[in-house]
Amino acid sequence: MTGPDGATAGSATADGVEAAMRRALAASVAAHGRTSPNPSVGCVVLDTAGEVAGVGATAPPGGPHAEVTALREAGDRAAGGTAVVTLEPCAHHGRTPPCTDAVLAAGIAVVHVALRDPHPAAAGGVERLRAAGVEVTVGTLADEVSAGPLRGWLHRQRTGRPHVTWKLAATLDGRIAAADGSSRWITGEAAREGVHALRARMDAIVAGTGTVLADDPALTARRPDGTLAEHQPLRVVVGRRDVPTGAALAADDVLHVRTHDPDEVLDALAARDVVDVLLEGGPVLAGAFVAAGRVDRVLAYLAPALLGSGSTALGDAGVGTISDIVRLHVDGVHRVGADVLVDARPERTGTPTTSQASG
Amino acid sequence: MTGPDGATAGSATADGVEAAMRRALAASVAAHGRTSPNPSVGCVVLDTAGEVAGVGATAPPGGPHAEVTALREAGDRAAGGTAVVTLEPCAHHGRTPPCTDAVLAAGIAVVHVALRDPHPAAAGGVERLRAAGVEVTVGTLADEVSAGPLRGWLHRQRTGRPHVTWKLAATLDGRIAAADGSSRWITGEAAREGVHALRARMDAIVAGTGTVLADDPALTARRPDGTLAEHQPLRVVVGRRDVPTGAALAADDVLHVRTHDPDEVLDALAARDVVDVLLEGGPVLAGAFVAAGRVDRVLAYLAPALLGSGSTALGDAGVGTISDIVRLHVDGVHRVGADVLVDARPERTGTPTTSQASG
Ligand SMILES: NC(=O)c1ccc[n+]([C@@H]2O[C@H](COP(=O)([O-])OP(=O)(O)OC[C@H]3O[C@@H](n4cnc5c(N)ncnc54)[C@H](OP(=O)(O)O)[C@@H]3O)[C@@H](O)[C@H]2O)c1
Ligand SMILES: NC(=O)c1ccc[n+]([C@@H]2O[C@H](COP(=O)([O-])OP(=O)(O)OC[C@H]3O[C@@H](n4cnc5c(N)ncnc54)[C@H](OP(=O)(O)O)[C@@H]3O)[C@@H](O)[C@H]2O)c1
Repeated sequence: MTGPDGATAGSATADGVEAAMRRALAASVAAHGRTSPNPSVGCVVLDTAGEVAGVGATAPPGGPHAEVTALREAGDRAAGGTAVVTLEPCAHHGRTPPCTDAVLAAGIAVVHVALRDPHPAAAGGVERLRAAGVEVTVGTLADEVSAGPLRGWLHRQRTGRPHVTWKLAATLDGRIAAADGSSRWITGEAAREGVHALRARMDAIVAGTGTVLADDPALTARRPDGTLAEHQPLRVVVGRRDVPTGAALAADDVLHVRTHDPDEVLDALAARDVVDVLLEGGPVLAGAFVAAGRVDRVLAYLAPALLGSGSTALGDAGVGTISDIVRLHVDGVHRVGADVLVDARPERTGTPTTSQASG
Repeated sequence: MTGPDGATAGSATADGVEAAMRRALAASVAAHGRTSPNPSVGCVVLDTAGEVAGVGATAPPGGPHAEVTALREAGDRAAGGTAVVTLEPCAHHGRTPPCTDAVLAAGIAVVHVALRDPHPAAAGGVERLRAAGVEVTVGTLADEVSAGPLRGWLHRQRTGRPHVTWKLAATLDGRIAAADGSSRWITGEAAREGVHALRARMDAIVAGTGTVLADDPALTARRPDGTLAEHQPLRVVVGRRDVPTGAALAADDVLHVRTHDPDEVLDALAARDVVDVLLEGGPVLAGAFVAAGRVDRVLAYLAPALLGSGSTALGDAGVGTISDIVRLHVDGVHRVGADVLVDARPERTGTPTTSQASG
């Protein structure tokens, strides 16, 4: 869609469209964690001069979608302008009217979409816009966008299951506790803050009864000052044993799934509209999820430290011999304070395939 | 030593001196592994116009030192010029005459040194040069140089012991073999090539009898095409059991130290002029070295993979509770093929202190 002068059709240059998509993505990151079961979408509206006229992100369920908020902010400046959206605008009536109607009513001339909606009922937005004479391209920053807040939602659309991120915090030699069971603090403050920020973007946090009995964790998302984050994920305990009275997780709003089967856990979560799950352990439960092929992302916070004994980060995952090793692909390696964060995904999952078709 | 116009005293600019020090360091890297017990030093000679006139690195023991080679290459162009050296030139008679004599005979006007020689007998080079009217500065790129080929030698000068690098190759969950003992190949080709290049720079490679009996390793440094590298480190086996007849390490040139005490191993190596030791495991021997405080650098090749059972990378290191955890400082994190390399050092070691005094 790039012309000889580097400009895309419509008023915005290719660089301008990418910049707008990055801004739309950033808006969707800020909304991540409060939109499930809806996808966290971002939208930027550019006027005919290519200036940003409106920015929007998905509101919590029942509230306006990203496009509607961005178009409302743009007002009259949307006419003849460009809409840049992380996900194909919906063409169906859900709790809110279709976004394609709002785009057409505002007189938008060009729409740039990063990813198509894999949901059969919602898809068709691109076709509906084109049929109405709007020029539509698909694929701007598709890889960046699919690695962002839409990742879990895309996974759920494809598989029907919530997306599971397993977070571990271990020493360089793979230990999560010393020989006597003591474990505070292996990773540093920056890593702990990162985990709390991660929790605040998740729909549910899962721990096994072993971790509950050993550590009595609260599994809440807290700010650096210790106060509770605005969004709190559903707290989930897995295992047949009871949560002891008086434990931090002995609360009415905690879901206790008395099973050893990861799929039963995911079914219970899917029924509660959960899209993004954070699995926080411990090693036995993590082993069961890895063995079942139900870990979709691994976030390994590795502390530069050695223990040489004590619990290992991962328990039996059904791997008996080296040819059954569970291979991962590294998406990123980051220094977090004094620690190292490895962000990886199982190789079987692959990179989400995105439609690269362009109008 | 930087004047108001950005030029150091002498003919070379501050930038020119740093560039020359980087080139001297690179020359010393190429010589690393063939100079012990002498330090692997690099030297660049600049003429009065600031142009590179000669480059030299330490030759194997008995051969010329870096300064002599660089000055010889520079010839007449050294007169009135600048010598840039990674280590203070020696002022004493060893197997070769003192380098300070060669510097003075060549008529060098300015000497820039990265690091002083901590060895009492060798030190005094700076003072001797200054007494003869040469301007000397100390400290150019001191941190970079002390992290290079001189690292092990500086450690040995300070402590009297060889410098020990523990290399491990493990999964993200800290395993080095599957439950049935199978272990090929956890890390990828790039990591294995990196280990062979590392071996070629070492004076000795150490493995325990457990590894010898389990894997029958050759512990040689090989090129990517499988041929032997020019320099082969001394191969060392530690443990009371015999190396089986017919094993790759059942050779005359292999040193077998029948002990469980890391310091006995290091004493035996020091007596053989070893400066740089690569500890390649296994977990029991590595645990003994960590417990004794005799690991000076950790190179952890982490494969993006999970096993969940099998041998752990590090065995008992005498850490019973979390407050005794062995903390490391991360010097660097690198992607090596599909793997992640964490380069770290025990916190007790700290960064080598370097004299920042300047002439
Ligand atoms: N550093 C970290 O990242 C981190 C995170 C979490 C925990 N930890 C540490 O992990 C330790 C606890 O380890 P853990 O492994 O006992 O805890 P866990 O994995 O949280 O819980 C294990 C329990 O989960 C239940 N369970 C669920 N699915 C199972 C399955 N498929 N197979 C077997 N059991 C299943 C069982 O409980 P029932 O008998 O009740 O059925 C089992 O005993 C603590 O020391 C804690 O500090 C560390
Ligand atoms: N992935 C990697 O980076 C890597 C590297 C090396 C090995 N490995 C794996 O490691 C496994 C072998 O493990 P390992 O721990 O048995 O091997 P090891 O550490 O090489 O050897 C252990 C033996 O060393 C001797 N030893 C020396 N000092 C000791 C001390 N302070 N305390 C106790 N024993 C001491 C003992 O032998 P004596 O009884 O003879 O005295 C002991 O049995 C193999 O499966 C191998 O594949 C992996």
